[in-house]
Amino acid sequence: MFVLDSQLKNDTIELGSLPLCELLLMNDSNYPWVILVPRREGLRELVELPAADQLQFTVESNAVAHLLQTQFSAEKLNIAALGNVVSQLHVHHIARFANDACWPKPVWGAAPSLPYTPPQLAEVIEKIHAGLSVDRALDISWAN
Amino acid sequence: MFVLDSQLKNDTIELGSLPLCELLLMNDSNYPWVILVPRREGLRELVELPAADQLQFTVESNAVAHLLQTQFSAEKLNIAALGNVVSQLHVHHIARFANDACWPKPVWGAAPSLPYTPPQLAEVIEKIHAGLSVDRALDISWAN
Repeated sequence: MFVLDSQLKNDTIELGSLPLCELLLMNDSNYPWVILVPRREGLRELVELPAADQLQFTVESNAVAHLLQTQFSAEKLNIAALGNVVSQLHVHHIARFANDACWPKPVWGAAPSLPYTPPQLAEVIEKIHAGLSVDRALDISWAN
Repeated sequence: MFVLDSQLKNDTIELGSLPLCELLLMNDSNYPWVILVPRREGLRELVELPAADQLQFTVESNAVAHLLQTQFSAEKLNIAALGNVVSQLHVHHIARFANDACWPKPVWGAAPSLPYTPPQLAEVIEKIHAGLSVDRALDISWAN
């Protein structure tokens, strides 16, 4: 049975479920930072996903990428499957800006995380809802 | 017309051409580190690739991932499209090990790069040839 890794659970806000992936928001207001976690037990690498899941993952990753471009005006996307610390397969999608906390360095370990205030969080979640809801082909079950 | 970015050219060894991507080896013996660069002019993001190219990219990325697992016994793969410094779309595929130069940190900017000696390079290239040549569905044009 798929269970979300406890560190991912601790570091993020669970936004909802896409057909394949759990949709998480990193609780770090330095950058709009979404994480996709395929609900497949025991996987560590993208290459381990069955072919049909890889196709679906591409659809969901593209939707998140579009969201970060349209709702957050990302200047650059950083998309990465690392997993050196948390081994459960998860893929970072981060909107980067030339004036963000650690540009042009990668974000991991670069700047102390800055948790969202409740109003900031509400605003970000509203943008994510708006950005993903335009994709009528994408069946989403929102957490709230 | 597609032209490989000059910094990528400078930092890597050009190994060959897959159907969609140029296949580069980062000249850093700290880690087996392969870079895929889709031969599409002016692209910066994976999401900008047309759907057919995204499918082909997945095929080629999977082949490189398998290669790093089978020929280099990667303990973990790090796969990332960042592009904060070099904007030409390129995707890192890095074999990581618990005893490597900067584990568990991401590799970018973490440890001084350590260029291959000619014998080391010959050995790595031989493994890459062997690892990718088993995939008969993958049409590869080797640089040497």
